[in-house]
Amino acid sequence: MHIDHIGIAVSDLESAIKRYEALLGTPCYKRERVESEGVETAFFATGESKVELLGATNETSVITKFIAKRGEGLHHTAFEVADIRAEMTRLKAQGYTLLNEEPKTGADNKLIAFLHPKDANGVLMELCQSVS
Amino acid sequence: MHIDHIGIAVSDLESAIKRYEALLGTPCYKRERVESEGVETAFFATGESKVELLGATNETSVITKFIAKRGEGLHHTAFEVADIRAEMTRLKAQGYTLLNEEPKTGADNKLIAFLHPKDANGVLMELCQSVS
Repeated sequence: MHIDHIGIAVSDLESAIKRYEALLGTPCYKRERVESEGVETAFFATGESKVELLGATNETSVITKFIAKRGEGLHHTAFEVADIRAEMTRLKAQGYTLLNEEPKTGADNKLIAFLHPKDANGVLMELCQSVS
Repeated sequence: MHIDHIGIAVSDLESAIKRYEALLGTPCYKRERVESEGVETAFFATGESKVELLGATNETSVITKFIAKRGEGLHHTAFEVADIRAEMTRLKAQGYTLLNEEPKTGADNKLIAFLHPKDANGVLMELCQSVS
């Protein structure tokens, strides 16, 4: 299990992309909308792990709600696993609560599932598995 | 520049260590107190990047204040750089505000410096450089 990416909620994706390009010294290499979540994502390569900026595409987006409640900032952290279903089964058996019964399709060609933050000391933790 | 670690503020370090050992499937490999910051840290290896749990060691700790304001959760993200002073100079020249004029000594044999969250869309970003 390794950190695949950290997700950062931002109010204005365009200006945040410029800021992070300067900050990280690397260009945004991919943008992708995930309509089902109401988000547009922008990715930056930083070694083995990526930085993902998350902008809302509508008023009911999880990102709109997150920023209204907490402001911009760190939103979640994602861990790449080899077999997401096996990992979900392992965690459920240990009493962890998953927010998804089945993996769903996320950005960046991934199957994803989230753990409830109450089981990870307030951290919204995503499991992800790359699919080709 | 790559993600060296993510830092997670926790109320009870002992129980959080047990939880993260089960969650990540890997033991805590190091604990270290940083008295100057009022924190005790616990590290987990997850590929190239680490997970760092941060517990407060006193009532005036930055972690005590963080949790009082926002609750447990993601506290900061750290990026390893080859030359922290050169990186600080580069960022200052681009208008970024640093919270430290000079690098200071952090946990895990690092020189560290923080950027102001206002310049990183609410993210507390640490630069770090390994020292031997």
